[in-house]
Amino acid sequence: MWLHASCKLDFEIPVATPFILMLRPRSGSQQWVAREQYMLNPSTEAVEFTDLFGNLCQRLVAPAGFFSIQTAFDIEVADSSDVAPGAPFVPVEQLPDPTLPFLLPSRYCESDRFSQMAASLVEGINPGYNQCAKIVEYIQNSLAYTPGEGQEIISATEVNQKSQAVCRDMAHLGIACCRALSIPARMVVGYLEPLRPMDLHAWFEAYVGGRWYTFDPTQQTLAGGRVAIAYGRDAADVAVYTQFGDPVEILNMEVHVEQISAPTD
Amino acid sequence: MWLHASCKLDFEIPVATPFILMLRPRSGSQQWVAREQYMLNPSTEAVEFTDLFGNLCQRLVAPAGFFSIQTAFDIEVADSSDVAPGAPFVPVEQLPDPTLPFLLPSRYCESDRFSQMAASLVEGINPGYNQCAKIVEYIQNSLAYTPGEGQEIISATEVNQKSQAVCRDMAHLGIACCRALSIPARMVVGYLEPLRPMDLHAWFEAYVGGRWYTFDPTQQTLAGGRVAIAYGRDAADVAVYTQFGDPVEILNMEVHVEQISAPTD
Amino acid sequence: MWLHASCKLDFEIPVATPFILMLRPRSGSQQWVAREQYMLNPSTEAVEFTDLFGNLCQRLVAPAGFFSIQTAFDIEVADSSDVAPGAPFVPVEQLPDPTLPFLLPSRYCESDRFSQMAASLVEGINPGYNQCAKIVEYIQNSLAYTPGEGQEIISATEVNQKSQAVCRDMAHLGIACCRALSIPARMVVGYLEPLRPMDLHAWFEAYVGGRWYTFDPTQQTLAGGRVAIAYGRDAADVAVYTQFGDPVEILNMEVHVEQISAPTD
Amino acid sequence: MWLHASCKLDFEIPVATPFILMLRPRSGSQQWVAREQYMLNPSTEAVEFTDLFGNLCQRLVAPAGFFSIQTAFDIEVADSSDVAPGAPFVPVEQLPDPTLPFLLPSRYCESDRFSQMAASLVEGINPGYNQCAKIVEYIQNSLAYTPGEGQEIISATEVNQKSQAVCRDMAHLGIACCRALSIPARMVVGYLEPLRPMDLHAWFEAYVGGRWYTFDPTQQTLAGGRVAIAYGRDAADVAVYTQFGDPVEILNMEVHVEQISAPTD
Repeated sequence: MWLHASCKLDFEIPVATPFILMLRPRSGSQQWVAREQYMLNPSTEAVEFTDLFGNLCQRLVAPAGFFSIQTAFDIEVADSSDVAPGAPFVPVEQLPDPTLPFLLPSRYCESDRFSQMAASLVEGINPGYNQCAKIVEYIQNSLAYTPGEGQEIISATEVNQKSQAVCRDMAHLGIACCRALSIPARMVVGYLEPLRPMDLHAWFEAYVGGRWYTFDPTQQTLAGGRVAIAYGRDAADVAVYTQFGDPVEILNMEVHVEQISAPTD
Repeated sequence: MWLHASCKLDFEIPVATPFILMLRPRSGSQQWVAREQYMLNPSTEAVEFTDLFGNLCQRLVAPAGFFSIQTAFDIEVADSSDVAPGAPFVPVEQLPDPTLPFLLPSRYCESDRFSQMAASLVEGINPGYNQCAKIVEYIQNSLAYTPGEGQEIISATEVNQKSQAVCRDMAHLGIACCRALSIPARMVVGYLEPLRPMDLHAWFEAYVGGRWYTFDPTQQTLAGGRVAIAYGRDAADVAVYTQFGDPVEILNMEVHVEQISAPTD
Repeated sequence: MWLHASCKLDFEIPVATPFILMLRPRSGSQQWVAREQYMLNPSTEAVEFTDLFGNLCQRLVAPAGFFSIQTAFDIEVADSSDVAPGAPFVPVEQLPDPTLPFLLPSRYCESDRFSQMAASLVEGINPGYNQCAKIVEYIQNSLAYTPGEGQEIISATEVNQKSQAVCRDMAHLGIACCRALSIPARMVVGYLEPLRPMDLHAWFEAYVGGRWYTFDPTQQTLAGGRVAIAYGRDAADVAVYTQFGDPVEILNMEVHVEQISAPTD
Repeated sequence: MWLHASCKLDFEIPVATPFILMLRPRSGSQQWVAREQYMLNPSTEAVEFTDLFGNLCQRLVAPAGFFSIQTAFDIEVADSSDVAPGAPFVPVEQLPDPTLPFLLPSRYCESDRFSQMAASLVEGINPGYNQCAKIVEYIQNSLAYTPGEGQEIISATEVNQKSQAVCRDMAHLGIACCRALSIPARMVVGYLEPLRPMDLHAWFEAYVGGRWYTFDPTQQTLAGGRVAIAYGRDAADVAVYTQFGDPVEILNMEVHVEQISAPTD
């Protein structure tokens, strides 16, 4: 399906402040960017680089005063995400090298502390996709999804002590459990077409049956179109913006996604 | 300055044919893509990857029949290219690792055969930028620039026996001579704003004085805006399209570049 | 100076177990490996790859039974680590791209939780090297260095609540504080020549004044020779061995480092 | 099998001269380095980096006077190279990204000039491994293998006009023909155990049936152990040493390979 998505971020910057942005979706095997717009207002010199995980990142120094970042694009994505019940666990020695970083514990996914819990959660389940599905089911049963509530980023061990969670929290908990079972798992930040209220979204992917599969504990089914903006080990790697120096307040953030019949001319 | 550039390629494809395209300019330290469009007609599944030199490449199988590729973008680039007479030669042992591949001979730049010629050309000239400038001057004096004439790609040794050349030929000869002097040199394919007749363009960059500088034997001065689409060792690395299997004829190619006051909304 | 270093790891493996090893020092700008030995007993098929941070890693499946890994090398290293009091802070926008991952919080270095503490620690100190030195001084004053005590890996926030620490803990705390000040900081695992008792060692590097500098809170001065085996964001990235599946006990670990006059023939 | 191999290069250096060396075999999926020695005499500061193709390269400035480089290693390699008659051609659109650079023409393999010849050579042969084997057969029939004779490096089109060739020439011709058929092909430089007279060796690999296979026109069968030191597009990428500035004469080069029962302690 074709989606039109946009994101507008408005800041009031007290003093010139360095930013790293991760707002440009890559064309890849899952999605094709047909039209794209990326505007900085006021116009500001920016430099793009590719990070460790292949994401396109933009570096700039936001000038003091009102500063606005606006991205928009027409993108073709799959109508829904693949599911594969029964897809087998890939033994560690057969994993492709690039999946290995996603086995390690990371800032918000302390998989080293989840061995016991993960093992007991999936007891009796066939190793692989079904274990991931079971983890998602556990997350859905133990945490109420409360979009928009949760400013400070918390880690999987902290999430696990709560009763409600945002999309990011649920992804962190899912990732931590998968890695504890030696299943590579990574964070995805992006857009989801039917998401209400509209916002940027986060979910995770796990590597089973020889490829990455999408898991999203916030959704009962995987219907709908997903746009991936960035991949990483957890939220620390995939912030859509990281700013340095004294904290800058965001005035406004507008996210919009809609299905379109075809890219506009 | 802001430029609007576009490129449209039309093919008649006899049988489904694999292509690799290199048509997406990257935002980087020299240019910022504010708007971009990349359309395949009929709509065709494509996969993007990054090549050895950091270029964004698109893989696809063009279906039999009429097939059209259309890219367009609004991009901010420098008003003119920097010049630096006197910028010194960088001793090989001080060159950054990523420049080293651009010291080696390559398909169309047989620098191993140009040691004597290059040395005699720059006799008495201070090592570095001035040597490159002298090489450009030699190319301009010995070859008439005849845009549009020259279908088969020929190598620097072949170019050197001719009296006229296209932009690509001149770049190959310049690169071969620079490398023969242990100056890293690389090919750039892209757009040049005031170029007439309008076409895709090729020039080269040489690494002296601690950075890459633009050299373009087709132009008497470096005035005007340049959009880089791809970097490589020579034309073999930076073809805007490479097709495999039986040769496919291109029906039409339209390139357009113009200066605009600001990116359109 | 020339060092001879060796590391022998003996395991009793209950069932065939996948390992990733990081035991091969790279020759680089700081050290030169003149002789090296890397033996697996019993002989086992191993595959080497380069991880995200440039470390050479070896993948293998250790067979059930007694399994031993032995590495040894003659290596030339600097007589002591450079110090640079007064070396300035590098503004984020001027940092080289490869340093940027070392600004982000990571599993054992929750720099996002250290902003206030780090800021108050370095109040009145010139940004850059001197801030790092002040952080090291704080670590030395608040934690007793107790080599060999501390099996479970704990994170900087946990370290900060204790009164004693191993080398790894001290490095994690130092890294977390540096990153909280927007100074890139990374973990190093390796050998230190005069270390007693002999063991593998961990320290950290911070990027100030345009290069990486060594900081080691376990040592009052930076005298002595250092061999770097692996670089990473924290201990999660640079484990000399990571094993998957049910935990395997290590029977014995022998580390030896000594100064030699020249590599043996 | 286990091999012990060594290479000693002696130079008389008129003035300090920058070198890039490619003499360190990597442990990987095909070979395991158990012991290694790498000595520079006189001892000289060297820096190692990884090139575009994953080879470990060493940069140094050889001081004026006598200069010697000596490498030696014990390495485990396969007893013989795999053959796979009938292994199918991989359509370009299914090739892994990292194989794509090996489809392009390069300095000494002008595959763009071999389309007709390659097509006629393999007429009627099943696409894939058998085409490569046919190309090898053609090379063996049309060129006498004359080891040691052939100082200047010549390209595939030049080789094709001769009646005798060194290993490097034969590899270049084989690579050019494979690429002309859209089969990725790459140059390998290394050691071959039973080679007489002993020397460094060159052969090529082609990507068919989903993996790289070894082809060596100098040998009637692929028996014997091979050590790969470097991979690249052709001899320009994989020179065991590249020197810059005025040519330096090599006084002596000694290569030695022998089978051993096990690595020495």
